Amino acid sequence: MNAHERAAVLSAGDELTLGQALDTNSRWISDQLLSRGIITVEHITVPDDLAAIGQTLTRLMNAVPLVICTGGLGPTQDDLTRQALAEALAEPLLEDEQAVQQIEAFFAARGRPMPSINRIQALRPRSAGVLPNPLGTAPGLHARAGRCDIFCLPGPPREMQPMFATSVLPRLRLPSGRALATRTLHAQGLSESEIAMRLGELMGRAGRVLVGTTASGAIVSCRLRCQGSAEELAGREPQQLVDDAAAEVQRRLDPYIFAEGEQSLPAAVRELLIQRSHTLAVVESCTGGMLGSMLTEVPGSSAAFVGGWITYSNQSKQRDAGVPAAIFATGGPGAVSRQCAQAMALGGLQRASAHQCLAITGIAGPEGGTSDKPVGTVWIALASQGPQQPTVQARRFLFVPDRANIRDWACKTALGMLRLSLLGRADLPLLAEQP
Amino acid sequence: MNAHERAAVLSAGDELTLGQALDTNSRWISDQLLSRGIITVEHITVPDDLAAIGQTLTRLMNAVPLVICTGGLGPTQDDLTRQALAEALAEPLLEDEQAVQQIEAFFAARGRPMPSINRIQALRPRSAGVLPNPLGTAPGLHARAGRCDIFCLPGPPREMQPMFATSVLPRLRLPSGRALATRTLHAQGLSESEIAMRLGELMGRAGRVLVGTTASGAIVSCRLRCQGSAEELAGREPQQLVDDAAAEVQRRLDPYIFAEGEQSLPAAVRELLIQRSHTLAVVESCTGGMLGSMLTEVPGSSAAFVGGWITYSNQSKQRDAGVPAAIFATGGPGAVSRQCAQAMALGGLQRASAHQCLAITGIAGPEGGTSDKPVGTVWIALASQGPQQPTVQARRFLFVPDRANIRDWACKTALGMLRLSLLGRADLPLLAEQP
Repeated sequence: MNAHERAAVLSAGDELTLGQALDTNSRWISDQLLSRGIITVEHITVPDDLAAIGQTLTRLMNAVPLVICTGGLGPTQDDLTRQALAEALAEPLLEDEQAVQQIEAFFAARGRPMPSINRIQALRPRSAGVLPNPLGTAPGLHARAGRCDIFCLPGPPREMQPMFATSVLPRLRLPSGRALATRTLHAQGLSESEIAMRLGELMGRAGRVLVGTTASGAIVSCRLRCQGSAEELAGREPQQLVDDAAAEVQRRLDPYIFAEGEQSLPAAVRELLIQRSHTLAVVESCTGGMLGSMLTEVPGSSAAFVGGWITYSNQSKQRDAGVPAAIFATGGPGAVSRQCAQAMALGGLQRASAHQCLAITGIAGPEGGTSDKPVGTVWIALASQGPQQPTVQARRFLFVPDRANIRDWACKTALGMLRLSLLGRADLPLLAEQP
Repeated sequence: MNAHERAAVLSAGDELTLGQALDTNSRWISDQLLSRGIITVEHITVPDDLAAIGQTLTRLMNAVPLVICTGGLGPTQDDLTRQALAEALAEPLLEDEQAVQQIEAFFAARGRPMPSINRIQALRPRSAGVLPNPLGTAPGLHARAGRCDIFCLPGPPREMQPMFATSVLPRLRLPSGRALATRTLHAQGLSESEIAMRLGELMGRAGRVLVGTTASGAIVSCRLRCQGSAEELAGREPQQLVDDAAAEVQRRLDPYIFAEGEQSLPAAVRELLIQRSHTLAVVESCTGGMLGSMLTEVPGSSAAFVGGWITYSNQSKQRDAGVPAAIFATGGPGAVSRQCAQAMALGGLQRASAHQCLAITGIAGPEGGTSDKPVGTVWIALASQGPQQPTVQARRFLFVPDRANIRDWACKTALGMLRLSLLGRADLPLLAEQP
């Protein structure tokens, strides 16, 4: 059997072609394939149109050995992928008994009968196999046409991603003879330009290991990739070449690399806290719970995170975090100040009896900015239990003034600040910090 | 001249097809076109490969009257859009004197001479026009092939978007006599299947107004679109037809439609609270601050949201929300129970002196499930100030067991529950509710 050296990704949906929703599946799938040595050569998005999906499937089947299609498997009349695949294969649609049972089981587990409309989701082209979907009602499909494997998966990423892992990955025929190694390191606290300058010649296009950076909000990821035949690599192992380059990247960006691969910043912080048997509380104003939400995204977060306060009003800052009323009085420093952030962090530390407490207070906008404190101004404080008495540090930041951006940067920068402190490097600056 | 009724969007870049970067240009461009009545029928992304770009351009030129291409206009060897366009047009590349001057001026304004490598960016196919780029070194291109207009723009959104506005928009020939109207209504609390059954024949593909649904987590959006010539619409206005259909959708899904267009569920809830001069507090366990974070995404949320407590530990549920210790004692109902959720909501209501208080407690997993209380079990309680004393209601839900999914659904379902209560419809069921 031919290997899956090249792939194409097809997405179906009016909401995508019309620009009403953003397709993130194609990027995710291509990234998954790349890390296994499979090169995606096309992404294509077509409307909920039988002819468009069918003709595109036919064209791709004849062009590449692997086609992955997402969307159009729902139960409604604008879900046409099943039918388009049947037409491209020139086969009738049959009802799959096992798929009916899976869909019925999905509803039964939720104490509801299967609506009759969902029965259509159990249809498959005659020669196609059905891929189970544990998290939704749309089973996937796997068909073979000539030398091409076609996988159809549902559009919602939460259903598609686990199905890709359990049903597509095991069926891939990985290219051999052309080895590949990749690593991705994540940094917080440095800008992409600063990182590019520190990495310098490592980012040249001529090296055996390609090093690229991608900034996503407050986090910059460094992607390393080595691929080639034995001759091209002069007999060296791609994994070793990538590992050597990763060590050098790590050294030049130390200590700002917080994690690798799929590990998130909150997960990295949780690990550092657990290593030290420390607990963490939060007191949030402008982020309104977002920092707590990020920390509790991580399974098992309760081992280090004890909870906190959303002190969105000045009244709750006083009542719940013990911030002195004088801070808010006329002539006082106000809610967005070093004093307020420090009082919030110390109050939270004490009331939660935690080892560490992060506090955030700032101006997320779009209203509320002044010339002294423009929108984007955020104070972040970290209170820590000391041998005798608690210590507290506070830093002021100015983030690019967009409400969602400010809140996201504030939370990630707070985690970065705690991380540097736990590593004994609280002296180092963080991106967007103000003197 | 023919109108630009339909369009295709082409993106060029290895980093896109390989999944190392996410293409957001195609969605943005299609959305811009749709709002002017132009329907995008395809997005396609190809690598930095001369043949792939050239063949795709040729195919699209013959299929649609408008092609917009982004990327591949940089100065390096992997920027091949200029050359591919020249090959598709079967024309030589010439140096454009004005473009050379623009690029030189770009560098002069930054106090640097133009590097020789950038001279290549002044090349254009013989019959093509050059589009100025005030924010970068890559000019755009505009060519005409048969009945098709092709625009090539640089890939970085901050350069592409202003060029689209100044150079592409004025050159579009908007479809006249073929009017377009769209609306999008968002529902929470019903499944996509239930909605499809209620909408029934409205979702047929033959109607004058196309009605499609898209589920994104706990929210289902109903997209309505009407387009056609005066004859096709029998002289009726598309906007009127869409408005009539929207009213019927609203009627059949009443009262689950919470908002329209860009308005979010937290924004809709905020509006209802403000209309009633009500304030809201939250007490969150398994969602860890996510509900507060959603509520404070909305600018001006402090007009209704006063803050709350992240009671992630049993200790903080007692200390901060006043949950009786007996709830957690051996033989007691435990943290994930009607009693605990109600105590959290009542405690928060009282301590925050708010009109409404939402409390969430559940098992987000992946660990911690039991046969009685499997992962995905969530209790949501709503306490409300009454004329004499507070009232409290609690409902149990079972969400699809994936940590991120459970937390997202819990928050949105809590908002849906508050919404129904504010509308006096607390008797109605919500999706995933358990008896």
